[in-house]
Amino acid sequence: MILGSGWGGFKLLRDMDKKSYDVVAVSPRNHFVFTPLLASTSVGTLEFRCITEPVRGYRDVEYHQAWSDAIDFEKSKVDCTLNLPKVPRTYIHKSPTETLEDTNKFTLDYDHLILAVGSYSNTFNIPGVKEHAYFLKEVADARKIRARVLECFERAEMSRSDEERNGLLHFAVVGGGPTGVEFSSELHDFIREDCSRLFPDLMNHVTLAVYDVAPTILASFDKSLAQYCMNKFKRSGIEVRTGTVVEKVEDGKLILKDGKEVPFGCLVWSTGLTENPLTASLEGKVLKSKNKRILTDGYLRVLDPNGKVIPNVYALGDCATIKDHELPQTAQVANQQANYLRKSLNKLAKNPEKSLEEVVQPFSFKNRGSMAYIGNWEAVVDMTKVNDNAKESGRLAWVFWRSSYLTMSVSMRNKMLIPMYWFMTWVFGRDVSSFQEYDRFKKLDA
Amino acid sequence: MILGSGWGGFKLLRDMDKKSYDVVAVSPRNHFVFTPLLASTSVGTLEFRCITEPVRGYRDVEYHQAWSDAIDFEKSKVDCTLNLPKVPRTYIHKSPTETLEDTNKFTLDYDHLILAVGSYSNTFNIPGVKEHAYFLKEVADARKIRARVLECFERAEMSRSDEERNGLLHFAVVGGGPTGVEFSSELHDFIREDCSRLFPDLMNHVTLAVYDVAPTILASFDKSLAQYCMNKFKRSGIEVRTGTVVEKVEDGKLILKDGKEVPFGCLVWSTGLTENPLTASLEGKVLKSKNKRILTDGYLRVLDPNGKVIPNVYALGDCATIKDHELPQTAQVANQQANYLRKSLNKLAKNPEKSLEEVVQPFSFKNRGSMAYIGNWEAVVDMTKVNDNAKESGRLAWVFWRSSYLTMSVSMRNKMLIPMYWFMTWVFGRDVSSFQEYDRFKKLDA
Repeated sequence: MILGSGWGGFKLLRDMDKKSYDVVAVSPRNHFVFTPLLASTSVGTLEFRCITEPVRGYRDVEYHQAWSDAIDFEKSKVDCTLNLPKVPRTYIHKSPTETLEDTNKFTLDYDHLILAVGSYSNTFNIPGVKEHAYFLKEVADARKIRARVLECFERAEMSRSDEERNGLLHFAVVGGGPTGVEFSSELHDFIREDCSRLFPDLMNHVTLAVYDVAPTILASFDKSLAQYCMNKFKRSGIEVRTGTVVEKVEDGKLILKDGKEVPFGCLVWSTGLTENPLTASLEGKVLKSKNKRILTDGYLRVLDPNGKVIPNVYALGDCATIKDHELPQTAQVANQQANYLRKSLNKLAKNPEKSLEEVVQPFSFKNRGSMAYIGNWEAVVDMTKVNDNAKESGRLAWVFWRSSYLTMSVSMRNKMLIPMYWFMTWVFGRDVSSFQEYDRFKKLDA
Repeated sequence: MILGSGWGGFKLLRDMDKKSYDVVAVSPRNHFVFTPLLASTSVGTLEFRCITEPVRGYRDVEYHQAWSDAIDFEKSKVDCTLNLPKVPRTYIHKSPTETLEDTNKFTLDYDHLILAVGSYSNTFNIPGVKEHAYFLKEVADARKIRARVLECFERAEMSRSDEERNGLLHFAVVGGGPTGVEFSSELHDFIREDCSRLFPDLMNHVTLAVYDVAPTILASFDKSLAQYCMNKFKRSGIEVRTGTVVEKVEDGKLILKDGKEVPFGCLVWSTGLTENPLTASLEGKVLKSKNKRILTDGYLRVLDPNGKVIPNVYALGDCATIKDHELPQTAQVANQQANYLRKSLNKLAKNPEKSLEEVVQPFSFKNRGSMAYIGNWEAVVDMTKVNDNAKESGRLAWVFWRSSYLTMSVSMRNKMLIPMYWFMTWVFGRDVSSFQEYDRFKKLDA
């Protein structure tokens, strides 16, 4: 039984040997999102559906579109709630005492449990972030950002003061990691290539800034690449405000620690990750790291509070890390872990009399490097973990960036769609249609 | 000044001679929707953005994303409200008495006013329709239907009784006009081609029915074509329940006039059109037809309650009709009217000393026929208005249907995207990813 349909969970449910195991998948999300290209979709360089793969495509997997609420390790049971609307009252004839809420709850048994539930965006409990910022983890997030950016331009076009225009057209990105950098770059491309054509009069009111607590952006990259990106951003007019601490967010306003107030039209928050409700519910039942990740042994087996292996329970991806071997929270790690676990479990199935230690070596992470798009057909690629000199920045890195992601994207459908949209964007620009509610009656009722 | 961005308004704002006129467009929707293919997008045969064209693309048009609230014909003014979120309070420094609501209101002057504001779906005041039915007029509607259909299948997969499954998987379409028929056909294709693969066990619980008060569906088509479609639907298992009157709609349940109750999972309502809030606000200021459309003379000039021409005010498309020459509410009419009005106004600009009567003939509608997709690569095409024998049904009509729509779709971008998606759907099937909110915290808060 696999919980989650991200990099770890989706890969496992696809690749597990279905002859040895009956695979049951539980995830509130009925698709996998190719997260490295999520920033591209948020401004319309790519269409949303180019980067998703439906879980339902795998007919040999029993899938439930549901949240996992609680796990009982002793009884090998998971309590779930469907992430679907409740059935209408009309349909419940059998037991009049059953509430609508009940009809969405169910419990599943497992033989082997794999936790790949990922994590939530970390707001560091800064007030107002949850209410006023956009995150960038799901397609729904990207869709909201896309609508919001267009709204800001339309609204600014109708504004009566420059102050208002400057505020609405300040795009703030908090967090200078790869996600924040890629989103800023994509947004910058969108503004420069499309908005400048559609709203030429507004261009000198637009500002785009990346805020980070650290002294540099792309801190996880090789220093020279981080510097290259900083220079590139400076040249293209993206402000980099490092060493900045955000204390509070209000509607349309960032309040910094030094007391400065920065009005913004759209705020994207990508500072890091924290536990989600399921991993939070495991408090006291499993061993956790300081930053609230589930701790496993080298074989990805979940440990109980005393550090002992919980039988048949594994964890991988963002929600977990190996005890004394902290892993980065990246797609690459989840992917390698999923590969490792698939092989381990398949070997175990073939040698049921043996233990995991007897059939496989512990997991070890091979850092294949990292890359980030930095705008205007340029990227940075850092493979210094593989070879000291293997780093590249600029146009060539961009070609590498695009071709690796294309190779990695899962289905043939998307391998065709993605380059097609890249081409379309290059030729025709990005689509700026925005689909809201247009029924005035409904609007007035609301 | 053009109000509306549908078939009439969008065509005019695109084609008007910008040397003779400064074109101002007001529409709550920032794009044009190619409505004939809307049903295709609602099940994923096409992607939503394939059938939209952004208004912002036309730089020589001053565009406001706003509702028109009220028109003052004497002062030649239109009051508008932006269809955009209010600016944050932070930004309003100038006048402390101004409310946030005020910042979204503005007034525009016009020399020539063109009303092309369309119409709303008619619920005939049947209780519960507005709350429980989906319409099919905007991209947002199609998007909601797409999510709902998938939800019904996922929910039914988890149901504990056949009764529940049958209810959730009854898809009801009320209204047997071309929209209702095309939607049913597309939905049937989706169920047969994709859902049958993804949810094979649910297939014998699925029912799809078209309800209509009239004794036939496609009543506006040639009798033999309507009959062809009825037979075709019968063969492919789409029930046609003509002569059925819906009295009330409750959550998940249709209540018919004969007292029967029909549980449904998804209800699509396409029975006809009625006035929208703007045309309603013109009550007493303009002459209206019995079915609440604005009446114009043969030159599309709006008439006042005494039947006199209101100077420089024109109306076309669904919201209007010609006095004593009732026009159908179709894209074809709006399109021809827009063409006519463009030519008239351009001629008037070149001969400012002359009146409209002196430069052009009154508008006359040329019925070029109608067509509808009826599923499984078949269509019906009715051109008996052009030539008595010009009707066609089946595969050849389908080829004609696809190629005409492709020719009519506006931008080169969409002329490339649409066949590409047709091909993708044929090869890979439709995408079944559904993008909802996945943040459990947010869900719990709501």
